Amino acid sequence: MEFLVRMTITAPGDSADVAALRAAEAERAAELARSGTLLRLWRIPGDRANWGLWRADDATALHEALTSLPLWPHARFEVHALASHPNDPG
Amino acid sequence: MEFLVRMTITAPGDSADVAALRAAEAERAAELARSGTLLRLWRIPGDRANWGLWRADDATALHEALTSLPLWPHARFEVHALASHPNDPG
Amino acid sequence: MEFLVRMTITAPGDSADVAALRAAEAERAAELARSGTLLRLWRIPGDRANWGLWRADDATALHEALTSLPLWPHARFEVHALASHPNDPG
Amino acid sequence: MEFLVRMTITAPGDSADVAALRAAEAERAAELARSGTLLRLWRIPGDRANWGLWRADDATALHEALTSLPLWPHARFEVHALASHPNDPG
Amino acid sequence: MEFLVRMTITAPGDSADVAALRAAEAERAAELARSGTLLRLWRIPGDRANWGLWRADDATALHEALTSLPLWPHARFEVHALASHPNDPG
Amino acid sequence: MEFLVRMTITAPGDSADVAALRAAEAERAAELARSGTLLRLWRIPGDRANWGLWRADDATALHEALTSLPLWPHARFEVHALASHPNDPG
Amino acid sequence: MEFLVRMTITAPGDSADVAALRAAEAERAAELARSGTLLRLWRIPGDRANWGLWRADDATALHEALTSLPLWPHARFEVHALASHPNDPG
Amino acid sequence: MEFLVRMTITAPGDSADVAALRAAEAERAAELARSGTLLRLWRIPGDRANWGLWRADDATALHEALTSLPLWPHARFEVHALASHPNDPG
Amino acid sequence: MEFLVRMTITAPGDSADVAALRAAEAERAAELARSGTLLRLWRIPGDRANWGLWRADDATALHEALTSLPLWPHARFEVHALASHPNDPG
Amino acid sequence: MEFLVRMTITAPGDSADVAALRAAEAERAAELARSGTLLRLWRIPGDRANWGLWRADDATALHEALTSLPLWPHARFEVHALASHPNDPG
Repeated sequence: MEFLVRMTITAPGDSADVAALRAAEAERAAELARSGTLLRLWRIPGDRANWGLWRADDATALHEALTSLPLWPHARFEVHALASHPNDPG
Repeated sequence: MEFLVRMTITAPGDSADVAALRAAEAERAAELARSGTLLRLWRIPGDRANWGLWRADDATALHEALTSLPLWPHARFEVHALASHPNDPG
Repeated sequence: MEFLVRMTITAPGDSADVAALRAAEAERAAELARSGTLLRLWRIPGDRANWGLWRADDATALHEALTSLPLWPHARFEVHALASHPNDPG
Repeated sequence: MEFLVRMTITAPGDSADVAALRAAEAERAAELARSGTLLRLWRIPGDRANWGLWRADDATALHEALTSLPLWPHARFEVHALASHPNDPG
Repeated sequence: MEFLVRMTITAPGDSADVAALRAAEAERAAELARSGTLLRLWRIPGDRANWGLWRADDATALHEALTSLPLWPHARFEVHALASHPNDPG
Repeated sequence: MEFLVRMTITAPGDSADVAALRAAEAERAAELARSGTLLRLWRIPGDRANWGLWRADDATALHEALTSLPLWPHARFEVHALASHPNDPG
Repeated sequence: MEFLVRMTITAPGDSADVAALRAAEAERAAELARSGTLLRLWRIPGDRANWGLWRADDATALHEALTSLPLWPHARFEVHALASHPNDPG
Repeated sequence: MEFLVRMTITAPGDSADVAALRAAEAERAAELARSGTLLRLWRIPGDRANWGLWRADDATALHEALTSLPLWPHARFEVHALASHPNDPG
Repeated sequence: MEFLVRMTITAPGDSADVAALRAAEAERAAELARSGTLLRLWRIPGDRANWGLWRADDATALHEALTSLPLWPHARFEVHALASHPNDPG
Repeated sequence: MEFLVRMTITAPGDSADVAALRAAEAERAAELARSGTLLRLWRIPGDRANWGLWRADDATALHEALTSLPLWPHARFEVHALASHPNDPG
């Protein structure tokens, strides 16, 4: 099952800690991409936020993936459950 | 450039005309998929609406693609311009 | 997977047709209850709307259950995907 | 009388105190489940929030149950009073 | 249990039918006042709407009272469940 | 002239100071009740907020009554001016 | 007591009837100005709407003034009760 | 050109500094009244906010007047540009 | 003085009349451009709406320009008054 | 491709640091104007915010321009992608 997820970073964006946090976030995102959980990720222009396309067995598995992100304590998430569409080219 | 587009159908959903319209829509969606304009399409559960992932040179080209849909006169669109993200697995 | 669904009736509520529609709705709701798809249903006081607790394999299966309701063409739905909680008594 | 309640945690989620608080919360939730006050509880995916199904004599009794939660000072609640529905399978 | 209810009239306000409807509404409001169900009623200035203070055993009984109003098919209702307050002079 | 007022407490709810503040608030509420200014008061279940029914000569007099509350610096108010309704039982 | 009132015209704006209606509206506005009820009136640019400054004994008297407007059945009103300010130059 | 301006005070309202600030605000308001820039000012009941009627050559001149207020750093403003209305009694 | 104006077309977009209307609209837009009133105009992608940059002496003159558009009876407008900025390159 | 961007300053506006920041912002804005990226800039009256007209190859290039602003860590941005309109005088 796929989910569209809007992630908004709420932590301030300038300290050294944040650089470490972002490196850890990139590493975890790569792991989630390798396991087929994180399919796509886009920046929202002008915002400290992104849209992601995720795949998980159900909402419980998605929640576990999102809480595994190093930025989880510094972010808010908006989750859209997706159903399959007959015209989907994907 | 990619765009996330939420399309909401506003026409009533039960007449014979609508069946013809939906067939024409499926055909046009397939064309837009072949040209690499429509990348993904999902139903929003419980809604007469969908999320689509689109690719176009710019907002003008996207507008032309959306207005080429047979359902254009019977739909509303919400367009989110996307920027590339360094962690995108896509 | 469970879903919380708010259903709002948009059709006018007084003609004879509506009585037939409501009887068909009750029958279909009973079928969905027997198959374990519709678990609970409550009226929202003062509103032509209800909250329902639904179970389905995923968002696609939920969408099929909702579109099988006789009132589907006369209703709007708002779907909340649910994850399991360690403190759930259920 | 049943109520649907959306509870949003507003306290930061990482200190040791919070672990103690969550243990106390689980214990109080179990008590409220045993007394038939808390019927169901679900996580909202991607959110520090949950949906709960509660039973209480009236709004005053519900308010007392909610304020008895250890997380009460660190949470916001949105209460939906429920009426019975003839098609309820529950 | 008391409820604060905002009622918005959605029917057009000028025909002869409406005069009959309003007379029936006044009569039913008087009955509900006599039974202790409708306690107070105020016009919202500049609006075809009112605030009412209602008393009912629970949300199901309130819903029955509201649907008994002749204006029910031509109105929308917003219901606020009330809990008792220690400082209430009433 | 009567007013419906929603009061939301914005101060944190746990220190000793707050207990003193609440005692002072109860005393002032009793005075305003005796003078016929505060007519009714209800808790909003699950919220640090209340609905009150107030009577004052005009909006200026109401503002003076609200600012005389000890909780005034720690609260937000939403004021609804009320007009008389011919069906009011009160 | 003064009120700030936003009036939005909801009727279509082009038929001959509307011209007659607008003439009647201008006449009634002049009467309300002479009686000191309507103090000021401004167009909201780009909108079929206006802001007005009104004076009335209370919300009931204001409601009567607003319902006396010929455009009443074709308009929506948003009423802001005003309190006096010590810095008011007026 | 006239403007309707809603000003919301965002600073806390109890320290000695605030008393000095309010005195300076009253003085500056009187100057702006004498120059014909500030025409009327009303308290919004129950709120730390006011509605003002202002006159300025254009939006740039209005912005300069608003930023000249001592409370400018502690306030938010919502500006409504006004057009003349043929029925204005003013 | 400049204004940013969002114009939303509310008329259905497919009949022959609309073609005539759009031709008249293009002609009037050209006139307003020649007089320096309409400075820029953009389509909002996926919407029957546009953003325009307008110049007028004040809100009254802007309102006259907007109501001179052939699409005026079939459109809604949202007007943002603009002040000059020291960093404006224009 | 052009974009309409609403920028809201979220930092407090009174310290010496802010003066240095604003000077740096003016310098960077001038550079972006020279490169044809920032086309126009307006103050929103009564607000610590501005509307800007920007040109960039796509949303990714726009995001880079916005994050190059010295005020980026102290601002929020709302981006509107623009499509070309046949009636644009620009």
